[in-house]
Amino acid sequence: MTVSPPPSDAQARVSQLMRDLQDEICQGLARLDGAGEFQEDSWERPEGGGGRSRVLREGKLLEQGGVNFSEVWGQELPPSILKQRPEAAGHGFYATGTSMVLHPRNPYVPTVHLNYRYFEAGPVWWFGGGADLTPYYPFREDAQHFHRTLKGACDPSHPEFYPVFKRWCDEYFYLKHRQETRGIGGIFFDYQDGQAPLYRGPEKDSPAAQYSQGLENPISLGWEDLFQFAQNCGRAFLPAYGPIAEKRRAIPYGEEERQFQLYRRGRYVEFNLVYDRGTIFGLQTNGRTESILMSLPPLVRWQYGYQPAPGSPEAELTEIYLKPQDWLAG
Amino acid sequence: MTVSPPPSDAQARVSQLMRDLQDEICQGLARLDGAGEFQEDSWERPEGGGGRSRVLREGKLLEQGGVNFSEVWGQELPPSILKQRPEAAGHGFYATGTSMVLHPRNPYVPTVHLNYRYFEAGPVWWFGGGADLTPYYPFREDAQHFHRTLKGACDPSHPEFYPVFKRWCDEYFYLKHRQETRGIGGIFFDYQDGQAPLYRGPEKDSPAAQYSQGLENPISLGWEDLFQFAQNCGRAFLPAYGPIAEKRRAIPYGEEERQFQLYRRGRYVEFNLVYDRGTIFGLQTNGRTESILMSLPPLVRWQYGYQPAPGSPEAELTEIYLKPQDWLAG
Repeated sequence: MTVSPPPSDAQARVSQLMRDLQDEICQGLARLDGAGEFQEDSWERPEGGGGRSRVLREGKLLEQGGVNFSEVWGQELPPSILKQRPEAAGHGFYATGTSMVLHPRNPYVPTVHLNYRYFEAGPVWWFGGGADLTPYYPFREDAQHFHRTLKGACDPSHPEFYPVFKRWCDEYFYLKHRQETRGIGGIFFDYQDGQAPLYRGPEKDSPAAQYSQGLENPISLGWEDLFQFAQNCGRAFLPAYGPIAEKRRAIPYGEEERQFQLYRRGRYVEFNLVYDRGTIFGLQTNGRTESILMSLPPLVRWQYGYQPAPGSPEAELTEIYLKPQDWLAG
Repeated sequence: MTVSPPPSDAQARVSQLMRDLQDEICQGLARLDGAGEFQEDSWERPEGGGGRSRVLREGKLLEQGGVNFSEVWGQELPPSILKQRPEAAGHGFYATGTSMVLHPRNPYVPTVHLNYRYFEAGPVWWFGGGADLTPYYPFREDAQHFHRTLKGACDPSHPEFYPVFKRWCDEYFYLKHRQETRGIGGIFFDYQDGQAPLYRGPEKDSPAAQYSQGLENPISLGWEDLFQFAQNCGRAFLPAYGPIAEKRRAIPYGEEERQFQLYRRGRYVEFNLVYDRGTIFGLQTNGRTESILMSLPPLVRWQYGYQPAPGSPEAELTEIYLKPQDWLAG
């Protein structure tokens, strides 16, 4: 299946979208926070390109929030990506994207992550990214709202996007050594160029892989369709997260909830440093360390052998919410 | 070069040594701490073997200290080890070891790590391990004492052990993405079976590799020599660390020093989760997660873009102490 080439202004348009997303999300978050402001660092990459990193610290809602934009280019993609996209070998590449991680202060407000990115390399191009929610205290209606909003962003592009990308998200944000998902998921996709298969992850028999293999109709979307899809996803973030933050930010909490939040943040660190391809790739290829590790929480706790009390909300979180499930059901 | 087989009671003797080391170190640390006590969990590994994990929390000297013993066996070593020891492929393996990480409360007392281990697999056997010190505030005499004591443990076995293993330690405990060592080093070695080359790490041109290549005399030690060496190293830990802890534990400190300690602990997490082969190997092969991650600090902080004030002790740490150097000079 031949993939049609991107329009000649593709790089400029996507990078503008990524910049706009960073702007809109930062404005929305500053308004939501009500006190904190984003500080910006612009940086250049010696090998080509650069970015702007923005961080809000010690806000009212956000203990820390980081939103990065970057646009980089170079001689060749690293081996880890070439393995998935051998056609890109020997070609220069271009990549642009926006990423974000928020660590709220109140333990009843979930941590959340977003990343959308675009690559071109020789004959191939693709969109990737997603958004996922990591609550500390479980609220089914929050999970439902988050997933519903993302599904609403996916459906206009293709009815199978949400079901595949939701499963792929559960698969990707999984801590094997803890046997739990990072949170209640969301959507995740990579290497999307408008052609089947939709699932292009490493697993052969995962639910995402199986569901994707079972799809009957061929998929044939163009560059413009996927550009629109990336936009829809990016612009769905504030409506997906804002109402949850508003609803939970004033719930009173004490030292116990705070300590549980700090403990659970340890899992976020474990995922990002042990499994997250973007983080590991960035650290190993001389990315801007401070921007990459902006995803790590401002304060974290580990406790040997911790077990939540049976029947507690803390136990409910891991027993029910950190296992993949259909959040739209019921 | 053919390596002579180990004595028939090798496994029993090394595993007894590792148990004894755990006992002696725990007793020494509990005495040093003066308040905290180690709690033990015994565990079994479904695939063969088990261990005992001991942790001391909220002591007077130690905010957290973990000392593990384990003895495991199975069908075949994982690919990452077979790559270094292809002769072991297709053979069952046996491994035993003791490991320890201490996170003291007072920021003037350094964090410290120790690990000694022994492997047998088919025609090959080897000893590995080491100990390294991670200060938060720099004291040249502490680095000197630590290195001197380790050198004293190495020299009776072979005069080239310390110079090679000291360089290998600097190479191994290195955070590429921060361009700094984890601390002031110590010794590190692996795959030691009494034959040259002493350096058996992955680098071709590192200082450790070059120094090892430059050695003129063949090395020919037997199993008993290396067993004695492992003993000497293990028993050098308390004399290497105890006097430093005693000297620094009563230095008054405030919020600033505490915050710097929490910040620097972030680097410990970054090293262990991104680079440490033992940690990654353990997590990916269904090791006992709680025992493996006992090395992580009880409380940690990340701060985007932190820079120590010029001329401060915090700046001196990274500028001088986190670069490899000869601590015995001067």
